[in-house]
Amino acid sequence: MTVATSPRLAISSDGAVLRLTLVDSARRNALSEAMIADIAATLAAAADDPTIGVVVIAAEGPAFCAGHDLKELTAHRSAPDAGRAAFARIMSACSALMLAIVHFPKPVIAEVRGVATAAGCQLVATCDLALAGPHARFATPGVNIGLFCSTPMVALSRAVPRKAAMEMLLTGDMIDAERAAAIGLVNRVVADDDLTAETMALAGRIAAKSGRTLKIGKAAFQAQLDLPLADAYDHAAAVMVENMLEGDACEGIDAFIAKRRPEWAPRD
Amino acid sequence: MTVATSPRLAISSDGAVLRLTLVDSARRNALSEAMIADIAATLAAAADDPTIGVVVIAAEGPAFCAGHDLKELTAHRSAPDAGRAAFARIMSACSALMLAIVHFPKPVIAEVRGVATAAGCQLVATCDLALAGPHARFATPGVNIGLFCSTPMVALSRAVPRKAAMEMLLTGDMIDAERAAAIGLVNRVVADDDLTAETMALAGRIAAKSGRTLKIGKAAFQAQLDLPLADAYDHAAAVMVENMLEGDACEGIDAFIAKRRPEWAPRD
Amino acid sequence: MTVATSPRLAISSDGAVLRLTLVDSARRNALSEAMIADIAATLAAAADDPTIGVVVIAAEGPAFCAGHDLKELTAHRSAPDAGRAAFARIMSACSALMLAIVHFPKPVIAEVRGVATAAGCQLVATCDLALAGPHARFATPGVNIGLFCSTPMVALSRAVPRKAAMEMLLTGDMIDAERAAAIGLVNRVVADDDLTAETMALAGRIAAKSGRTLKIGKAAFQAQLDLPLADAYDHAAAVMVENMLEGDACEGIDAFIAKRRPEWAPRD
Repeated sequence: MTVATSPRLAISSDGAVLRLTLVDSARRNALSEAMIADIAATLAAAADDPTIGVVVIAAEGPAFCAGHDLKELTAHRSAPDAGRAAFARIMSACSALMLAIVHFPKPVIAEVRGVATAAGCQLVATCDLALAGPHARFATPGVNIGLFCSTPMVALSRAVPRKAAMEMLLTGDMIDAERAAAIGLVNRVVADDDLTAETMALAGRIAAKSGRTLKIGKAAFQAQLDLPLADAYDHAAAVMVENMLEGDACEGIDAFIAKRRPEWAPRD
Repeated sequence: MTVATSPRLAISSDGAVLRLTLVDSARRNALSEAMIADIAATLAAAADDPTIGVVVIAAEGPAFCAGHDLKELTAHRSAPDAGRAAFARIMSACSALMLAIVHFPKPVIAEVRGVATAAGCQLVATCDLALAGPHARFATPGVNIGLFCSTPMVALSRAVPRKAAMEMLLTGDMIDAERAAAIGLVNRVVADDDLTAETMALAGRIAAKSGRTLKIGKAAFQAQLDLPLADAYDHAAAVMVENMLEGDACEGIDAFIAKRRPEWAPRD
Repeated sequence: MTVATSPRLAISSDGAVLRLTLVDSARRNALSEAMIADIAATLAAAADDPTIGVVVIAAEGPAFCAGHDLKELTAHRSAPDAGRAAFARIMSACSALMLAIVHFPKPVIAEVRGVATAAGCQLVATCDLALAGPHARFATPGVNIGLFCSTPMVALSRAVPRKAAMEMLLTGDMIDAERAAAIGLVNRVVADDDLTAETMALAGRIAAKSGRTLKIGKAAFQAQLDLPLADAYDHAAAVMVENMLEGDACEGIDAFIAKRRPEWAPRD
């Protein structure tokens, strides 16, 4: 994969797993415009790269991601429009990044060792899966600075029960990793020493599956969620029929019946 | 109730509880076209049978239900259309069965002692309630054979938190009964020796309530779920008014105020 | 705040927290037409009172709230229309009260020490947050009297997982406080001796935040919940831009960067 070098991201790969590490720890990995653009560009390149099956998003330093860069936002207040155009551009870019993860044709897994706040918490809520270290913490603290975490709530309120989301949004309080697992914000808590290995192993196991099938399935998951039940079934049943006619389903079912390992087509 | 005899189903009743047991354990109770048709026909007959108040779906053998019958599906690949028409017919029949359970006018309870996979897991997710034995396990393993569990996801993603559903769908891994209870896929775990008795007792207690009221309530539950909040309240309030004017509500409230047992109208 | 005195409500305040206590314990704090009207009037006055930042709803006696007043409902059966008009009026008023809490411009917290049933359980499910004492219990028992809890289900089914809601609705059984916390019906369980102090402290901490920001955020939370994902992001991003341009966000962010306490504008 060819991506422009960024001082904010470290990119490595292990087999078919792309590991994208936020390394702007001096700014607590804030989602500055540059950081949003770098992550978006990296994902755009990875989407079409047939050597990549799964993306892991990790971070260096005590903060997984602190959300928007408040100093950058504030600097725009001196504009003639008091920043309106810049704020709109930044919020739009951030929402577009989150939607890009939702619609990314490959699974995206968050590996959260530190503190994920505001849009950083949204990033965790947005990823398909998330593993957390025991010291990971999560908050939507915008309410404490007069800027309610309204875009983070979109992802948060779809990942966790309503009152749990409301408590985070109204209080701005941190929750710990165990609470995050209990409410469904992360899949589970893993010991610090094992977190990276376990996340990469999970990613590797998923990346070994049929890329075409993962792409079909992830897209269907998102498409059916917002539909009424009967429409969701119509959509999913049509997807199943097309999936059955794909080469990887022929190969996978034949291999299963013959009790041999399937050989998937290359990712497209 | 008169239903055609099926080698795949054992049907019995205990009071007003119809117990429908999948007994095709040699095929792991797969949802073959014949099995889907048999269950659908049994439910259709039970829907109109005033002696039946609740349906329990149980299974014999190590598998509760293994989902679609892969050998049957594969046999259709030799058709001139590579199986498309047959796959569409089968997926449609299976989705119709799940919707028939959702819209069935009486509560349906799954009693899960063994392994429920793919459309078998969907069947559990679709039932109104589910009790699981301690050895019950659940998976949506289609991804492992190149056929993503897209229709099972419709039921699964509406029963459990999003990341828990995604983990099952992307990994295909089994979860155990305790995890299934923690995420809401089943209501609770019951010791093996007590599972059938406790499921039948739960079914019996529900079947002793007003059949007319259960029918009104279950239909309202499904109808309001997909509506925006204010519309959901409009619908539910209208249902409550009609329900208040029913004979069973008159009787039930009078009996409650008089501290006597209500006598419900026969089911219609 | 000026509200008409009610024999059914005790109103007090502690700083910016309005404490509304249901004191009709002889009728188990039933939501009679008078009680619904009194709570609605109190909330309407509190909505526009700039001295109030958060509302706590508590109750005296063993019942938090028993739902509709069955004797009052039954009395309308002797009307020429068998009560239809009265039932419609009462159900509509009750649903309007619940929607008024949802759209109330300030957070509403339930403090539940006793038994919350039917529309009383709905009231808990509807509040933004809820703390429960260890002896609190919850049920939607309408099915036992032939009157399914169809309006309570609207709030319940949006607060807790589907099968947990269905079990409460179909059985009418009580769940205890720990179960209510596990399924998300309340935020957490607090020891009896600490419940009021902890609820009021939580309310006080939230009331100390920017009232303008809480109003923006709570409205955005409700508005985005029923929207498809991309629409939800469009809405939330637009809200964030407007929020950034508010005085309290300027003050809050400046104070955060300067590491000083923010001074919020008075509530409007």
